[in-house]
Amino acid sequence: MAARPLENYSRLCIHTITNKPWTLEQCIENYSRSGIGGVTVWRDALADRVIRKAGEEIRAAGLEIVSLCRGGFFPSREKAKREKAVEENRTMVDEAAELGAPLIVLVCGAEPGLPLEEARDQIRDGIARVLPHAESRGVRLAVEPLHPMYADSRSAINTLAQANDLCDRLASPMLGVAVDVYHLWWDPALRSQLERAGKAGRLFAFHISDWRTPTEDLLLDRGLMGEGCIPIREIRGWVEETGFRGYNEVEIFSTRLWQSDQHAFLESIKSAYLQHS
Amino acid sequence: MAARPLENYSRLCIHTITNKPWTLEQCIENYSRSGIGGVTVWRDALADRVIRKAGEEIRAAGLEIVSLCRGGFFPSREKAKREKAVEENRTMVDEAAELGAPLIVLVCGAEPGLPLEEARDQIRDGIARVLPHAESRGVRLAVEPLHPMYADSRSAINTLAQANDLCDRLASPMLGVAVDVYHLWWDPALRSQLERAGKAGRLFAFHISDWRTPTEDLLLDRGLMGEGCIPIREIRGWVEETGFRGYNEVEIFSTRLWQSDQHAFLESIKSAYLQHS
Repeated sequence: MAARPLENYSRLCIHTITNKPWTLEQCIENYSRSGIGGVTVWRDALADRVIRKAGEEIRAAGLEIVSLCRGGFFPSREKAKREKAVEENRTMVDEAAELGAPLIVLVCGAEPGLPLEEARDQIRDGIARVLPHAESRGVRLAVEPLHPMYADSRSAINTLAQANDLCDRLASPMLGVAVDVYHLWWDPALRSQLERAGKAGRLFAFHISDWRTPTEDLLLDRGLMGEGCIPIREIRGWVEETGFRGYNEVEIFSTRLWQSDQHAFLESIKSAYLQHS
Repeated sequence: MAARPLENYSRLCIHTITNKPWTLEQCIENYSRSGIGGVTVWRDALADRVIRKAGEEIRAAGLEIVSLCRGGFFPSREKAKREKAVEENRTMVDEAAELGAPLIVLVCGAEPGLPLEEARDQIRDGIARVLPHAESRGVRLAVEPLHPMYADSRSAINTLAQANDLCDRLASPMLGVAVDVYHLWWDPALRSQLERAGKAGRLFAFHISDWRTPTEDLLLDRGLMGEGCIPIREIRGWVEETGFRGYNEVEIFSTRLWQSDQHAFLESIKSAYLQHS
C-alpha cells in the first residue's frame, strides 16, 4: 500500500467560518488554489446569494460541498419558538438540497433553566419532525454532541453516547452523528462510542481543531491543530478504524486567528493538518 | 415531622475562598455571627498561621471544620514532580489532622498534552501512595470530579462515574467523592452515579454554586445559587435521597463577587441558600 503523499489536501475540508473575514467567493478561490478537497458552508456565507448558483460555483472550483452548518436549536419553553425552529430546519433542508450539500450539522440547542431532560425530549421531537422532509430531499442530518460547557444554552446533547442513543431512538438511515474533537476529546468513552457509531453506519462527519491552555473564551478561543492538547491524530485513527473515509473538517472559532492575515492562516492550517492530524 | 425552620444555617458551610478578600479570622467571625454551621478551609487561608491554633479558634467560634481544600495535582511527565506531589499531599494530611479537618478534597490534576489515560493512571498511583498515611492519621480523602473544561490542566477525572470507578479500584473506606453541582450538573448519569456513590458509603461532600449564562471566564465566573441554570435543589434532593446528611458547601470563585462588599455578599449567600438550594 502506497504511503499517503506528504502534501495531499484531498481529504481536508475547511468550514467557511474558520476564515470568517473572507467572503464565500474568497474561500472558494483560496481553498481551490490550495488543492483542498472540501468545504463546509456556514449559512451566513450564503446570505444575499442565489444558493443554487453558489453550489455550482463551489463545484466548478473543484471543491466538494461536505455539509451545511448549522441547523438545530430545537428546545424552548415556548411552543411557538419550537414550531419556528422546526420550520427553520425544514427550510434549511431545502437550502442544503439547492446548494447540493448532502448533510446538515445539528447543534441541537438548550435554553438556560429549561431542564435538560425536557430539552432532550424536545430535541428528539424536533428532529423527528424534520426527518421526513430531510429524507424526501435526500439530505442527511448529523447530531453534533457539544462540550458540556455549552449545556446551558447551546446543546443538551453533550456526549457521543447521548447522540448515539438519540439516533437509536429515531432509527433513520438519514440521521447520524458529527464528531468534533474539541467537544469530545476528554470523554473516556469516546473510542467505544466511535465504534458504536461506526457499526451503526452513522458516523457522518469529523471536525478538528485544538484545545488551548489556558482557554480564554468559552466560544471564540479554539486553537489550530497542534496549538493545544487534543490527541487529534489518535482520535482520527479511531475514527478511521470504523471505516470512515470522509473529510477532516477544520472548524475553528477564534477571535485571535480571525484578526490575523487569512492567507497566512490558511497556510498554517494546511501545515498543521499535515503535521498534527 | 417538623418543617425545617426557615432561617436555619446549621447545614450551610462556606469555603473560605468564597470570601477570598477576607482573612481566616474575618471568615470565622462573620460566619459564626450568622449561625452558619461549617467552614471549609482553603490552604492559603492558613499561611503564616499555627494550624492547630487556627483549628481551635474555628471550633471555639462554634463552626465545624468540614474539609481542607485542596490536595491532588498528581500527574506529571516528570517523575520528580509526581514524587513531590505525593509528599505535598502527605504533608497536607498532617495539616488536616492538626487543623482537625476530617477530609481533604482532591483536585486530581492534569498536564496539557499528557495523555488522559496516563494522567488517570498517575492519579490512581498517587492516591494509593497517600492513602496509608491518610488512614493512619484518620483523615479521609475525596476525589472531586471536575468539569470536562478542566481536563487539559486541572483534572483528568471529569465525571462521577470515573470517580466512582477510581474509588472501586482503590477500595478504602477512607476514600470517597466530593460532588460539586458546578462540575456535574450537565451529566445525564449524575443521578444514577450519586446512587452508586451513596450505596458505597463514599459520598463525602456536596458543593454548590451556579452556572451563569454567559459564563465569561472558565475559572472565575461562577454564580451564586439562583444566578444560573443549575437545578441545585433537585440535585440536592438526589444527594439527600442517598442518606447524605452532610453540609451544603458554598464554593464560589468569582472575580465579580470578590470585588463586591463581602458583608453584603455573605447576606446574599444566606438568602440564596434558603431560596435556591
